[in-house]
Amino acid sequence: MQFRFSDSLKNVRPSEIRELLKYASAKDFISFGGGMPNPLTFPMNDIKQIMDDVLAQYGALALQYGNTGGLNELRTEIKTLVYDTEKIKTSEQNIIVTSGSQQGLYELAKVLVNPGDTVITEEPTYVGAISAFDANKTEMHSIPIDNDGMKTDLAEAEIKKLTAEGRKPKFIYTIPTFQNPTGITMSLERRKHLIEISAQYEIPLVEDNPYGELRYSGSRLPMLSALDKDASVIYLGTFSKVMCPGLRMGYTIGPEDFINKFNLLKQALDLSSSTFSQYVAWQYLKRGIIKQQIPKSIELYRKKRDAMLKALDEHFPDTATWSRPDGGMFLWATVDSKINTTDMLKDAVQEGVAYVSGNAFSPSRIQGSSMRLNFTFSEEDQIYRGIEKLGNLIHKKVGPLQSS
Amino acid sequence: MQFRFSDSLKNVRPSEIRELLKYASAKDFISFGGGMPNPLTFPMNDIKQIMDDVLAQYGALALQYGNTGGLNELRTEIKTLVYDTEKIKTSEQNIIVTSGSQQGLYELAKVLVNPGDTVITEEPTYVGAISAFDANKTEMHSIPIDNDGMKTDLAEAEIKKLTAEGRKPKFIYTIPTFQNPTGITMSLERRKHLIEISAQYEIPLVEDNPYGELRYSGSRLPMLSALDKDASVIYLGTFSKVMCPGLRMGYTIGPEDFINKFNLLKQALDLSSSTFSQYVAWQYLKRGIIKQQIPKSIELYRKKRDAMLKALDEHFPDTATWSRPDGGMFLWATVDSKINTTDMLKDAVQEGVAYVSGNAFSPSRIQGSSMRLNFTFSEEDQIYRGIEKLGNLIHKKVGPLQSS
Repeated sequence: MQFRFSDSLKNVRPSEIRELLKYASAKDFISFGGGMPNPLTFPMNDIKQIMDDVLAQYGALALQYGNTGGLNELRTEIKTLVYDTEKIKTSEQNIIVTSGSQQGLYELAKVLVNPGDTVITEEPTYVGAISAFDANKTEMHSIPIDNDGMKTDLAEAEIKKLTAEGRKPKFIYTIPTFQNPTGITMSLERRKHLIEISAQYEIPLVEDNPYGELRYSGSRLPMLSALDKDASVIYLGTFSKVMCPGLRMGYTIGPEDFINKFNLLKQALDLSSSTFSQYVAWQYLKRGIIKQQIPKSIELYRKKRDAMLKALDEHFPDTATWSRPDGGMFLWATVDSKINTTDMLKDAVQEGVAYVSGNAFSPSRIQGSSMRLNFTFSEEDQIYRGIEKLGNLIHKKVGPLQSS
Repeated sequence: MQFRFSDSLKNVRPSEIRELLKYASAKDFISFGGGMPNPLTFPMNDIKQIMDDVLAQYGALALQYGNTGGLNELRTEIKTLVYDTEKIKTSEQNIIVTSGSQQGLYELAKVLVNPGDTVITEEPTYVGAISAFDANKTEMHSIPIDNDGMKTDLAEAEIKKLTAEGRKPKFIYTIPTFQNPTGITMSLERRKHLIEISAQYEIPLVEDNPYGELRYSGSRLPMLSALDKDASVIYLGTFSKVMCPGLRMGYTIGPEDFINKFNLLKQALDLSSSTFSQYVAWQYLKRGIIKQQIPKSIELYRKKRDAMLKALDEHFPDTATWSRPDGGMFLWATVDSKINTTDMLKDAVQEGVAYVSGNAFSPSRIQGSSMRLNFTFSEEDQIYRGIEKLGNLIHKKVGPLQSS
């Protein structure tokens, strides 16, 4: 039978990253593609011990259906965690456990946006947010970023314009710390400006913070949620980068009426997130293992970041520029405008190395000569070899005269 | 800040079952509410062994991000499972792993239905399907069922009428075997008729089969997916009733172009289902533990079903009627039309016993004097006491003259 499909997905782009995952585990293939944590950081022994204990002590509950909002004990631990790490004050009823923070992105768009409504994002921004917003027929207005993060003066101008047109944005989406894909951290001044804009125009802020704990240099800046005095921020957190991604555990924090809507939608989406994963995450926090784990990840990833920066200095042409992130998992390189990084990806994969092309992260598709490079997954020698291969490809494409 | 919400959830009803879960674990409370398997059926030792082995042998992969479509090895085992149990012939690329079969319901509605489009369901039908379809602004046309399942002649008449109005249904949703909430099984004749209707009007069938393996009496009937010759059936399966619900593992089988759309949406929804849960489900199938587990569940649940039928005979008034299911987890009782089961629920909870009221399952809200009774979760003595309490409540409400 010929199926007829709804037009609900007509704007949604297939994910390059999902495609690249195929190669990620192939032998000798060097992947700077996916945003994958290094498996060396997975606390394997602790997780084994926790799983054994959870089955022994809570088996009948941990393998059963659970509350849609999430395990109460886990929400209490999350409350403590975000206060300890980011000085965010919240309560259990403001927290909902999600199946990865990706689910949070989809849900908040569905709860806040009618088809055709506008939202503000960064340019470039997280590819999964673009998918989630496109799947809800959101009209994204993306604001360029520089080394201090989103250009909030441009954001304000865009909001003014849209508001005057009767199309006031439904929310402002930002990844202020170690942004995906650029690795850039928003300055304190811009953070404060964003809070002001939010209050003045009455537009909720969505603060996505998957990488905040992974800082390798520089000093911590206050999160929007900690600066917020008006319950105007929705905060997205995840266990994927500080425990492991395979249990699909994230959480969303927001005003109670928002969380209640979210809960209602989640009943339709998946009833609840994995009860078992929630018990594991709960014990992971309660036993304090997260506090031992994060410094280990930082030590490992700092070296990898430094290795990639060194390799770029050596192998990328002078015409290329790239970010120098203080944390997170990615840096962002922009090469000669003659090069289309989407086209070049085929050659790169042929050479056994992958990145994600700039336009995957671009709501306006204006990042055709950029690429996102993940530095957490590969070994240091792979990082050197992979960047050298990419450098050679770029040199070849730009031609010998332009190369350094 | 005052949040403004989209109107995407305006039709979605809060779930009574989710509410009742609060009481389910309270001491001495008797819950016939949720569709919860009995924890005695969870293969605790096998799951512990499998988890230990998965972490030891596949830890770095099982705790990492995975493919959106699902672990290939698991899809191969699912292919074998549905052939062995239901004689359904399919291939890996026709299978997508889901976060419970609830996610399949939401996704298929989103992929097939534009807001306002019509679909056909049973009356009554699964409450989670109502949520998923309402969250996608589907217009449900619900077709009464009798002891042979959905009245397919009425379904055909409704389809004819809607098609003539230019509002041909986008799919027909059915739970043909041990239906939720009634426990009724659709006859072979009706199954064949449904296949004919689907072919004649070119409308996909959605076959939800969470309970098929839990048969306590009678003989197996062919699934629509096994009768289908035109790739017109979408099949929903789950591990929740044959392993455990807490790992949130389900799967959807359908034509490849449908599965590809589904995959694209799932990238936006949650990237992928828990990789770890998938490894556990894979090993659960591969080691054949499911084959040892199902007969144990059947033995336990048959006794509970029989206990509930006996208790109903003893304690419910003559004016009440109820289904006598050959399998599954529920039976459906209809009491005197003077009684509104939604109102009576408050009194029942006061007495320490819960069911789910009929209208929770009714797209047309015409089941005001019915209730769904789950018989798998409670102990046999609880079943007797709980039904006695409900019987007493009903007697009190109907008055002494009408009681038996």
